[in-house]
Amino acid sequence: MARDFEDHCWRDIVDEETLEIYEPYRREVRVGRNPALLGIDLYNKAYQGGDRPVREVNARYSGACGEHAWKAIEPTRKLFAAARAAGIPIIYTTRHAETAGVHSTHRRIGAESEELYHIRQDFSPLAGDLVIYKERASAFFGTPLIAHLRKLGAESLIIFGESTSGCVRASTVDAYSYGFHNVLVEECTYDRSLLVHKVNLFDLHHKYADVMHVEEVLAHLESLVRSSHAA
Amino acid sequence: MARDFEDHCWRDIVDEETLEIYEPYRREVRVGRNPALLGIDLYNKAYQGGDRPVREVNARYSGACGEHAWKAIEPTRKLFAAARAAGIPIIYTTRHAETAGVHSTHRRIGAESEELYHIRQDFSPLAGDLVIYKERASAFFGTPLIAHLRKLGAESLIIFGESTSGCVRASTVDAYSYGFHNVLVEECTYDRSLLVHKVNLFDLHHKYADVMHVEEVLAHLESLVRSSHAA
Amino acid sequence: MARDFEDHCWRDIVDEETLEIYEPYRREVRVGRNPALLGIDLYNKAYQGGDRPVREVNARYSGACGEHAWKAIEPTRKLFAAARAAGIPIIYTTRHAETAGVHSTHRRIGAESEELYHIRQDFSPLAGDLVIYKERASAFFGTPLIAHLRKLGAESLIIFGESTSGCVRASTVDAYSYGFHNVLVEECTYDRSLLVHKVNLFDLHHKYADVMHVEEVLAHLESLVRSSHAA
Amino acid sequence: MARDFEDHCWRDIVDEETLEIYEPYRREVRVGRNPALLGIDLYNKAYQGGDRPVREVNARYSGACGEHAWKAIEPTRKLFAAARAAGIPIIYTTRHAETAGVHSTHRRIGAESEELYHIRQDFSPLAGDLVIYKERASAFFGTPLIAHLRKLGAESLIIFGESTSGCVRASTVDAYSYGFHNVLVEECTYDRSLLVHKVNLFDLHHKYADVMHVEEVLAHLESLVRSSHAA
Repeated sequence: MARDFEDHCWRDIVDEETLEIYEPYRREVRVGRNPALLGIDLYNKAYQGGDRPVREVNARYSGACGEHAWKAIEPTRKLFAAARAAGIPIIYTTRHAETAGVHSTHRRIGAESEELYHIRQDFSPLAGDLVIYKERASAFFGTPLIAHLRKLGAESLIIFGESTSGCVRASTVDAYSYGFHNVLVEECTYDRSLLVHKVNLFDLHHKYADVMHVEEVLAHLESLVRSSHAA
Repeated sequence: MARDFEDHCWRDIVDEETLEIYEPYRREVRVGRNPALLGIDLYNKAYQGGDRPVREVNARYSGACGEHAWKAIEPTRKLFAAARAAGIPIIYTTRHAETAGVHSTHRRIGAESEELYHIRQDFSPLAGDLVIYKERASAFFGTPLIAHLRKLGAESLIIFGESTSGCVRASTVDAYSYGFHNVLVEECTYDRSLLVHKVNLFDLHHKYADVMHVEEVLAHLESLVRSSHAA
Repeated sequence: MARDFEDHCWRDIVDEETLEIYEPYRREVRVGRNPALLGIDLYNKAYQGGDRPVREVNARYSGACGEHAWKAIEPTRKLFAAARAAGIPIIYTTRHAETAGVHSTHRRIGAESEELYHIRQDFSPLAGDLVIYKERASAFFGTPLIAHLRKLGAESLIIFGESTSGCVRASTVDAYSYGFHNVLVEECTYDRSLLVHKVNLFDLHHKYADVMHVEEVLAHLESLVRSSHAA
Repeated sequence: MARDFEDHCWRDIVDEETLEIYEPYRREVRVGRNPALLGIDLYNKAYQGGDRPVREVNARYSGACGEHAWKAIEPTRKLFAAARAAGIPIIYTTRHAETAGVHSTHRRIGAESEELYHIRQDFSPLAGDLVIYKERASAFFGTPLIAHLRKLGAESLIIFGESTSGCVRASTVDAYSYGFHNVLVEECTYDRSLLVHKVNLFDLHHKYADVMHVEEVLAHLESLVRSSHAA
């Protein structure tokens, strides 16, 4: 059975008054037609320091997302597997270490190795996947993503990765602006602060994307496999 | 004396742990060089129903921001006056009522009169100001704003208006992506939910803009007047 | 029978050597899938001064295209009629007279009336058509066109209008960059200088669009009507 | 003494009537304020086959520009030297060999080595220069160029390279749309067909850029050196 529109991680911090004000955004959620998978910044840097509290890992590994990143690994593996089985286009974003001073945010950042920005081995791109290199937060800004989506015939996106308040949000807002129907996969999306994660997911769900649970998205992708077999 | 980097409205909801994680964003804030003023969506619709709690006005006037909008009127008037005295370019965004189904968010919306999207009389555009009509949340998306900023020689922006989590945020993220130094004026920026307002302002301050208090921005604009007189 | 890839207006000025160099562009031309019609700048200004040599009309009516504009009226009417019969989306571009100094080219231009930029009555937009207001040459630059095309489900474009070397070319190059398959309708496209018209059409045909004769495009649109009736 | 506005390579093919029609574009040309140098696609592929007629080299090396490319080498070296002496930002465009099927034009293209798209050794980028990788014709489309230009404080561009009718034209039109004042350096810009080269340069000069002779641009860059020494 479909879960309620507000049955998400933000329930414990968003009060009744706010939910009432946000009532005009209530609608049925769904994976759109001809979806492509868009994994945002699933690179090694986010996982550095291991499955520990962000506060601990972040002191040594700037930009690491600690336990939030690690908790998302298993659902993210399942998501990739289901997307590959369904045969939908698979797109990754990452960046190069050296970008001549153009960065995604005001965060202080030192010299880094290119290896930090390789996609984590659990989700390595395969031949035929698309890897988009970006310098700003959005997967669309300063990249040829829109041209590839047109070429691939993608009409909607399934978005996830990190961080909710940074590159995921900027990419999702742009995707909405370009006219794509967007799904955000809750369990595969994370940030450094839970408060910030929850409020951003709340914003995105109401304004720009359908936040869905990974099991709902997996079920949809499996139905695509079945219908293609039936055809 | 300059106020602390975290001395803002979000102090009561952002905990110590999060502040520690966000330490790498700490820096000195400032109004940038050759600023232009960018007032986001200061149109009648936001003020409908008067200076009352959002919950009350919103039931009747979808999209109204109630007391938050009204509280910002006086500081916003001062900001416009100071910007005009300093002779910096003044830019407004708004929209047309009819946009063939392309909207800023997923919010349900009915037929509306063009008058709802006229700039509130307190801040009416004057001859020589620029009014940008947009259909999506960002002032840059699908508009010629970037060309006008180049033509005007603007190298930084002073941004404010509504809503923090919608058009203000999307516009500020894009402004950062295009390479502008951005100031967000706290007291002239508002949203429907305080929680959402505070967390978005927190995000924007750390990642994409210098959130400053209106008195700091006014002081800077006054210094521009003085230095142009001295010159 | 399909006409040859080079059987177009440029035959009398492009020599054998150039055709040989351009051989790697040779391919089969076709109207793409899910086309939308994009009429560029079919506004009154282009027709001012009547069906006379450009040299004569241009002295008095800056920007008029004279006999070239008038010759295109009849095929353009047929094209609109066929597109309406086929039920494909119909999009116009034009501009506002006042654009705060941001113009499509370096051409000197004085104060103008808004009426000059109304679409010529022969092709007036109907309810449900989309009119895009632009300030630069390209229909995409600084406009929400890409969002509307996504929303309409358009996957290819049928482009025509004026001028070949200005707004038609800039719009077609951008359409190609965004990933659309483009058709340019030769008899419905014009410029002030025949030399410039022919060389630009030659460029566009080889690099970015399939230049087709109006009778070929009409035949295709009629086949869309038939296949929708059959369905 | 300044050369006439029409004293350029297109004189032998553009007739009096056309020049009369194009009179409203006549203006004084100049290098703009705070220029950056933008060298388009000066990669090995263009020079393959050596200093011979295009027809000969092109049969074996698709995309080579033969004698036109080679003739531009010496003026281009001088231009880079003068720009480096003047200390202005230096930007190159090129592409990667593999771009998942997104290309600059409809030209048929086979598998290629990355080395073909390295900048020719005569003009090799130095540390601190910016290299922009693009997939479409324009240096702006799908690249972060606009963000870098803002960051560098560039207010105008000096553009040159290849091909006049392809990447140079698309880049120049976009640069104009974004609001840059553009200079195109005639002797450093080339194409495969002379007819196509001349008409495109004619178009660009009138509509979007000031086509200048290399000696005029060199003189300007030398004046920048002198004035910075004087300061």
